[in-house]
Amino acid sequence: MTGQISTRLAELGIELPQAPAPVAAYVPYVQTGNLVFISGQISILDSNEIGTGVVGNDLTPEQGQQAARNSAINTLAHLRNACGSDLDKVRRCVSLRIYVASAPGFTGQPAVGNGASDLIVEIFGDAGKHSRAAVGVTALPLNCAVEVESLWEIS
Amino acid sequence: MTGQISTRLAELGIELPQAPAPVAAYVPYVQTGNLVFISGQISILDSNEIGTGVVGNDLTPEQGQQAARNSAINTLAHLRNACGSDLDKVRRCVSLRIYVASAPGFTGQPAVGNGASDLIVEIFGDAGKHSRAAVGVTALPLNCAVEVESLWEIS
Amino acid sequence: MTGQISTRLAELGIELPQAPAPVAAYVPYVQTGNLVFISGQISILDSNEIGTGVVGNDLTPEQGQQAARNSAINTLAHLRNACGSDLDKVRRCVSLRIYVASAPGFTGQPAVGNGASDLIVEIFGDAGKHSRAAVGVTALPLNCAVEVESLWEIS
Repeated sequence: MTGQISTRLAELGIELPQAPAPVAAYVPYVQTGNLVFISGQISILDSNEIGTGVVGNDLTPEQGQQAARNSAINTLAHLRNACGSDLDKVRRCVSLRIYVASAPGFTGQPAVGNGASDLIVEIFGDAGKHSRAAVGVTALPLNCAVEVESLWEIS
Repeated sequence: MTGQISTRLAELGIELPQAPAPVAAYVPYVQTGNLVFISGQISILDSNEIGTGVVGNDLTPEQGQQAARNSAINTLAHLRNACGSDLDKVRRCVSLRIYVASAPGFTGQPAVGNGASDLIVEIFGDAGKHSRAAVGVTALPLNCAVEVESLWEIS
Repeated sequence: MTGQISTRLAELGIELPQAPAPVAAYVPYVQTGNLVFISGQISILDSNEIGTGVVGNDLTPEQGQQAARNSAINTLAHLRNACGSDLDKVRRCVSLRIYVASAPGFTGQPAVGNGASDLIVEIFGDAGKHSRAAVGVTALPLNCAVEVESLWEIS
C-alpha cells in the first residue's frame, strides 16, 4: 500500500492485522454495485486485551471505547481486501451499527461508539463521516465487548 | 414548506423540531445514490417527557409506543434536511429498525414499534409502507426508550 | 415453481410455508433498485415448536440453531413472493442480521446463527454466501428465540 490512506494509517501508527476469519458460516463482506457490506466485526485484537466483557460490569466506558476502536481496525482489514488493497478507493463510510455489550442501566453507548467513529474520521477525513446507530445488547459473540457492522461506498 | 407532505403534517398537528444534533461523533444522515441512511434517532422530544426508561419496567407499552413516535418525528426532521426541505421528494420509506429498551420477558416490541410505523404511513401513505425489524435491547443512549434507524429512497 | 432453486428446496425436503403476515404495521419486504429488504422474520413455524424462548435459559444452543433455521425459512417464503415466485432470480444474499434472544453471559450467537446461514448456502450455493452480524438481545417479538433481517440482490 502506498496510497494516501495507507500513509495516513502509518502516520497514526496503525498496522492493520490480517483480516480475521469469520467465526461462523459467512463471508467477511459482500459488494453489490458500489456498496460494500462488511460483516459484524468483534473487538478482539491480538495486540489488545481489552476486547472482551460487558461494559458497565467488566469494563469501564473508556475500555469499551478501546474495544470499539479494535472493531474498527478489524473492519478496515476487510475493507482493504474489498478494495483490492487500495483504501484510496473508499468514497464514503455510509453507516456504522455499533452493538455494545451493556450492563442493564448502562446508557453510554454513544461515547463507547466514538472509539470506532473517531478513528474512521481521523483516517478518512470527510469521507469517513458516517450515519450511525449505537445500542446496548445483552451479549456478543465470543464475549466481545463491541461488534461493529458497516456499509461503505467504494469506486 | 408548502408541499403535499408538509400540508399533511400540518393536518396531523405535527410540527417538526429543529433536527437534533447527533449525540456523538457522526452525522445525522448520509446519501448514496437515491438512498438516504438516517442515523439512529432517540425518543426524547422537548415537548414530550415519555421518552426515557425501559419498557416493561419504567414504561408501559403505550408509553413505549409514544416514545417510538418521538423517534419517528426526530427522523423526519433529519429527512427533511436530506430532501433540501422538500419532503415531497420522498419516494419510499425502505426500512425501519426499531430498538426498544426492554425488560427481560417483555416481548411486545411490535406494538411499541407501531408508534413509529403508523405515523409514517399516516404521513406518506403507500410511500410510507416499509420493511421493519423490531427487537428488545438492554439499554439505549441517554436512557431513551426507543431508537429508530431508517433508510429512505428519495428523488 | 419448477426452477433450479425450487428443485433444490425439494431435494432438501423443505416446503416453504405461506408467507407469514407481518405481526404489526409494516410490509414483509420493500424493493429498491435490485435490492430487496426483507423484514425481520421470527422463528415460529407451524411445523416446529422450538421457536420460542431465550437461548441459554429456556433453549439450548442447538435449539436456538433450529430456531434460526425457522427464521430463514420464513424469510425465503417472502423472498419467493418478492421474486414473483421464481427464486432463480436471486443473484446474491447480501447480508443477514441475526438477533438471538440471549441470557446474560450466553455468547454462542455465531453457532446459533449458522442455523440460518448454513441453510441459505445449502440452497443457493455461492450466491447464498452473505455478510452477517449476530448479536444477543434481551427479548424478541412474540417471545421468539431468533429474528433474522435480510437483504438480497435479485435480477
